[in-house]
Amino acid sequence: MKGARPLSRWQLTVDLTDGEGPVYLAIAQALSDAIRAGRLAPEERLPGARSLAAELGVHRNTIVAAYDELVAQGWLEALPARGTFVAARAPTVLEGRGGSRSTPRRAIPLALPDLSLGPNEREPGPVRRRGLIAMDGGTPDLRLAPTTAMARAYRRAVRSPEHLAYGDARGHPRLRAALATMLAQARGLAVDANGLLVTRGSQSALDLVARALVRPGDRVAVEALGYAPARAVFRMAGATLVPIPVDAHGLDVEALGRALADGPIRAVYLTPHHHYPTTVTLSPWRREELLRLAARARPPMVLIEDDYDHEFHYRGRPIVPLKARDPHGLVVYVGTLSKLLAPGLRLGYAVAPPELAAAMLTIRELSDRQGDPAIEAAVAELFEDGELQRHARRMKKAYAERRDVLLTALADELGDVLDVTPSAGGMALWTTVRSPWAAHTEAWAARAVELGVRVATGREFGLDGAPLPHFRIGFAMASPDELRLGVKRLRRALAYFDTHRR
Amino acid sequence: MKGARPLSRWQLTVDLTDGEGPVYLAIAQALSDAIRAGRLAPEERLPGARSLAAELGVHRNTIVAAYDELVAQGWLEALPARGTFVAARAPTVLEGRGGSRSTPRRAIPLALPDLSLGPNEREPGPVRRRGLIAMDGGTPDLRLAPTTAMARAYRRAVRSPEHLAYGDARGHPRLRAALATMLAQARGLAVDANGLLVTRGSQSALDLVARALVRPGDRVAVEALGYAPARAVFRMAGATLVPIPVDAHGLDVEALGRALADGPIRAVYLTPHHHYPTTVTLSPWRREELLRLAARARPPMVLIEDDYDHEFHYRGRPIVPLKARDPHGLVVYVGTLSKLLAPGLRLGYAVAPPELAAAMLTIRELSDRQGDPAIEAAVAELFEDGELQRHARRMKKAYAERRDVLLTALADELGDVLDVTPSAGGMALWTTVRSPWAAHTEAWAARAVELGVRVATGREFGLDGAPLPHFRIGFAMASPDELRLGVKRLRRALAYFDTHRR
Repeated sequence: MKGARPLSRWQLTVDLTDGEGPVYLAIAQALSDAIRAGRLAPEERLPGARSLAAELGVHRNTIVAAYDELVAQGWLEALPARGTFVAARAPTVLEGRGGSRSTPRRAIPLALPDLSLGPNEREPGPVRRRGLIAMDGGTPDLRLAPTTAMARAYRRAVRSPEHLAYGDARGHPRLRAALATMLAQARGLAVDANGLLVTRGSQSALDLVARALVRPGDRVAVEALGYAPARAVFRMAGATLVPIPVDAHGLDVEALGRALADGPIRAVYLTPHHHYPTTVTLSPWRREELLRLAARARPPMVLIEDDYDHEFHYRGRPIVPLKARDPHGLVVYVGTLSKLLAPGLRLGYAVAPPELAAAMLTIRELSDRQGDPAIEAAVAELFEDGELQRHARRMKKAYAERRDVLLTALADELGDVLDVTPSAGGMALWTTVRSPWAAHTEAWAARAVELGVRVATGREFGLDGAPLPHFRIGFAMASPDELRLGVKRLRRALAYFDTHRR
Repeated sequence: MKGARPLSRWQLTVDLTDGEGPVYLAIAQALSDAIRAGRLAPEERLPGARSLAAELGVHRNTIVAAYDELVAQGWLEALPARGTFVAARAPTVLEGRGGSRSTPRRAIPLALPDLSLGPNEREPGPVRRRGLIAMDGGTPDLRLAPTTAMARAYRRAVRSPEHLAYGDARGHPRLRAALATMLAQARGLAVDANGLLVTRGSQSALDLVARALVRPGDRVAVEALGYAPARAVFRMAGATLVPIPVDAHGLDVEALGRALADGPIRAVYLTPHHHYPTTVTLSPWRREELLRLAARARPPMVLIEDDYDHEFHYRGRPIVPLKARDPHGLVVYVGTLSKLLAPGLRLGYAVAPPELAAAMLTIRELSDRQGDPAIEAAVAELFEDGELQRHARRMKKAYAERRDVLLTALADELGDVLDVTPSAGGMALWTTVRSPWAAHTEAWAARAVELGVRVATGREFGLDGAPLPHFRIGFAMASPDELRLGVKRLRRALAYFDTHRR
């Protein structure tokens, strides 16, 4: 029992500022306060008298006297040849002076400003349960991530003291060069590595754009069905959101034109390559019209192009980004390595017009200074070695296969219930629930979680959080067998719901 | 020459949306646009005709025809048995359609909001030069960082797919537990691991506090000499800064009381353990008075306690943080691993009253979602193994020695010119330049950089950016020999300045 806990390896700090009377009693009081406040845990071993004496600048005998006093009071136990320990049954409730666990005793309310977020706009915790098949999003299959190569590259990178230090807030030059090469070769987007800003995932890129661009009261257009955390950053910056409908050809640019007639729009946030959540692609004629509209507007509209899963395009040619045709410097291009590599690395990037890029860089430096140079250098090495290019090809092939598996399984099991929206790429399928089941979409999905599969429902994507008869079903993070099993569970959830709930 | 550049490893995306006439000409046009726009570099090898044909969904002969056309036009060169390359002398200027390097051709100004930053508040790039001895700050000596242990711990951590995924935005539970243990044992601060938020260095903790707490127009008190990037985050949140003087006992709490009489103060940002930049410690009686003042104020004042280098205290006992005596929940405690381990890891933490902690967490999730779980787990392992505790002890010993070396060298070389402010800890010494040299502090420091040593000058710390007769001289990042050499160079810079500039 005793000694099972490791020795305290941190020097013990004793607060003597309250002490009165003899020093040994003051020390005893401080130690019992520490035990009461939970800073010293039951059965924890105390420092030796000699070492605590040296630390507190008192004679060893003073500490011995303090320990004896506390043993007498029942706070401590002395075990011959083992040391002095906090008594197993010492009180640990947070009473008395000096206690300061997370809940203050007499808290004064702070009256914080309201963040004014809408439904869905607080990032939900991921539902994790053993055996639950997660088909609710666009996370890649992390079981296939090149972790051995990553660990090797990190080991090399972390050896250089410069990779542990303050560095270039735009991101490691090697990573910027690798990303610029990828953008030029794989996406037809020519950027100078100096015009590219490495960020903490695309979310932080969007936050930087919002903070640099939006004044309170500015109108920002967003896709009527879209990515709630993106909407949230514009709201936090004080924007009024203007929802624009999306159809089979992507954002309805005519509707945007009508909204613009109602008043200036500072920025449009959109996902043109694979619309989130429906995965449709913005048509070429709408792209041209959008660029014209942005440049004609006064003040001009900034187009924030979130190209979150460009690499996963399975039919026909990938479409070149809007940013590739931006003579007026109105497009901010945002991308991420979360889909290609792993979201945990928190690596994204932005290519912005120079004026905006400079403001974003200043805000970046002041909000978290820079990224982790060792991680950035390690990922750069994976690009330089061709490791990530090979990984991208492998994953594209795997995800194309999984997409086919999911399409087949949905047709076989739920062809009479779900209509799948045609799309050329992405990491999920967008489906519409037919009547009479449409009205029960949420209940169906809830039952499906009980049976071991999670899909996203339409409610997660609209501005008002109202239920919508859609499932978004991810296929990237589950194996073909898991996908087939997941669809069977989804079917079973419907059967149960059919018999029990109607 | 040819083939020296690596093969393009990314699939090439060709934009055919502009194409007119025969497909092979459209492809040729798209390729020459790509070369003109810099997306394909001189001497770069093109994909084989068969593979590009497959990618674009055309017949192989169409690509051969397009390549032939471009060879005829001089854009490409075909080398038998080697492949087809962009001509070495192909134009790369950014003319014509489709070009979009960082500088737009006909940029429309965006009229961005002003960030309203003061002098010194845009983070300066670090001055790096071979042979320059950096004694200008509080960076640890990264040559001594435990990188082998870190690489090993990362290799173990990155193998778990959960460490590559979305996780707990508060930070990895193991890291929060390790930090809570450290705070309890080494700093006398009892916190629940759940009340602790891991951040991207202390800078992002301060940014989160400012965003959660400050409304435009709120007054925020700051130390009159202080840390400019901290001031900047409060300004970005719209605060009006109220400078409070600092003397040998730290922040002048009486002066703060007078400022409070002029109107409400939302928050006080301070560095009580080792004041930045002067390294003095806030006295116990002022701490008590400050806590009383904060609770009495209406609305209450939030105290933002930045304890950036707690571990490096050399004389007497470390003082327990303000946060340890916070019955009203008015203190936000901010710390960092930048000094203990390395700034490049971007790991800090905050312990805030629950209401404020919840708002900070929401903003964190929306601004960059979370930290890197693999890095957080790896650092947690270093704590669990006792590696960081041993490192802390080693570094404290090394820095105490370096501090003595610097004190001795300054007394020997510059005892007649610089007065050193007494202090009990920190990673730098604060000195005052005596007359008649006081007025030439900036010129002296500039000359010192030319001679190979950089110290920080008083100008970097005040709100108005005015020159002040102080040097802040860091001792942690330089070895004893470097410190002695650095001081000699500083002396030499004065000699040169004495003879040439006066």
